[in-house]
Amino acid sequence: MELDKNTKILIVGLGLLGGSYAKALTKKGFTVKAITRSQSSVDYALGEGMIEYGTTEPDPDVIGWADLTVFALYPHVFVEWIGKYGKYLKKGSIITDVTGVKSCVVYKIQDMLDGVEFIAAHPMAGREVYGVQNSDDSIFKDANYIVTPTDKNTEEAIKKCRALGHTLGFAHVSELSPEDHDLMIAYLSQLTHCIAVSLMTSSSVPGLKAYTGDSFRDLTRIARINEDMWSELFLLNKKPLISMIDEFSGELYRLRTYIADDNVEKLKEMMRTSTERRKAFDKTNMSEKD
Amino acid sequence: MELDKNTKILIVGLGLLGGSYAKALTKKGFTVKAITRSQSSVDYALGEGMIEYGTTEPDPDVIGWADLTVFALYPHVFVEWIGKYGKYLKKGSIITDVTGVKSCVVYKIQDMLDGVEFIAAHPMAGREVYGVQNSDDSIFKDANYIVTPTDKNTEEAIKKCRALGHTLGFAHVSELSPEDHDLMIAYLSQLTHCIAVSLMTSSSVPGLKAYTGDSFRDLTRIARINEDMWSELFLLNKKPLISMIDEFSGELYRLRTYIADDNVEKLKEMMRTSTERRKAFDKTNMSEKD
Repeated sequence: MELDKNTKILIVGLGLLGGSYAKALTKKGFTVKAITRSQSSVDYALGEGMIEYGTTEPDPDVIGWADLTVFALYPHVFVEWIGKYGKYLKKGSIITDVTGVKSCVVYKIQDMLDGVEFIAAHPMAGREVYGVQNSDDSIFKDANYIVTPTDKNTEEAIKKCRALGHTLGFAHVSELSPEDHDLMIAYLSQLTHCIAVSLMTSSSVPGLKAYTGDSFRDLTRIARINEDMWSELFLLNKKPLISMIDEFSGELYRLRTYIADDNVEKLKEMMRTSTERRKAFDKTNMSEKD
Repeated sequence: MELDKNTKILIVGLGLLGGSYAKALTKKGFTVKAITRSQSSVDYALGEGMIEYGTTEPDPDVIGWADLTVFALYPHVFVEWIGKYGKYLKKGSIITDVTGVKSCVVYKIQDMLDGVEFIAAHPMAGREVYGVQNSDDSIFKDANYIVTPTDKNTEEAIKKCRALGHTLGFAHVSELSPEDHDLMIAYLSQLTHCIAVSLMTSSSVPGLKAYTGDSFRDLTRIARINEDMWSELFLLNKKPLISMIDEFSGELYRLRTYIADDNVEKLKEMMRTSTERRKAFDKTNMSEKD
């Protein structure tokens, strides 16, 4: 199901993701307005025809106009914004977000609102570049869109939020509790970024740049990291992330022990498990695309 | 400099790499013969016109025919083979290899030979598939070919070995001592495989297959691993590999501590180092291709 074409959409925060939302939704014929911090982002988005109207001011008329407001801000900015301007949101309207961590934000925002429903979502799409100038709605094409409802959400809002995911062009739209989402993201996304950073900073071999193969390049591609965004996301998801780092470190230590002890049988067994899981995983991905 | 076209080449071991060598060299007009374990590999290579002659027997006439013999065997099989049949190699000829670890093999083989020079090399190319049926000489195109000479090697043999790398079509041909090679490989290749395996076996989050993003797929692509080959390579390179695992684990633990302590400044600093190193790294790769 796609979103009703008459839905008036406001995007708060025209960065890479907010801009990509604006692009996709305007293309589909929606009326999209935007509030963002810098005038140059407004000018760019207007110049590219990505939005109908944009402003750097938290104008109550613009805020109160929207049926659906998408917050594409850093988590702490999102919470501050709602604290200051949440009162201007249209009663009966829905707000959603793009925040990469959920438990720490969802309940807090829901408690702050009155007459406005917050249905949280995480679009698992991104690029290693930033800003509205790099926005690109094709990043949604093969990606996951996860809605993370709580007991406070209505069936109708959940449906609308899922419809937004489909309208944006995401390949997979699904639902997870905020807690399951955060555990999953700790493992699949945050831990991999921690590994890439640690791999990059642990280099003590001189002149190795000339010898990198594909595997090292693949593992460290994400080591070019936006430190403001990721440090905030790591700290907001501290508990699941630390437990995942510990679990991974334990497995790496197990492997190290097998190597140190010349335990070739255990070493092979661990590699077989790894191979089987990775194979099953490729199969799942393939069948999803069929 | 390319290899003299009259060089008679014998390949021992027609797997993915041996087969890819045969393909590339026959295409270039060399006479290539092969000795390998299974008749089906011989038949395949003959059928595809990859070799002029092939046998499963360690025929002294074939072994003694070659000016240059390439060993594309597992390390322990290589050592055994030289012990049994090394005496049949032509006096004054050169042998080389494709082994992924060096110190543990190079000195041993050099000590075993008499009147034959072993100049070791590591073609840093491969695929996640195996066997002569998957051989593909295009894998050399963007890859590194590293010659690892010792004090026992002559300038002439080193030159010929480098020429082989160029003839095969490698993008970069360079030299490292066996020890530097092993340290580099422990960090850039073996550690990344250890990480991928540990990441795959530490999964305890159910149903996460549906949510994987690119970063997790990139990091675990190499988790489909040939356990016989990699367990042998890990154990043969135990000391450098364990020191790299420990260095990496220390960095990951440092990152974990910053997260646990809410030390956002140190966390950002580590991410900035990672980003800078990774950027420099991309630049190096680019300028190499220019």
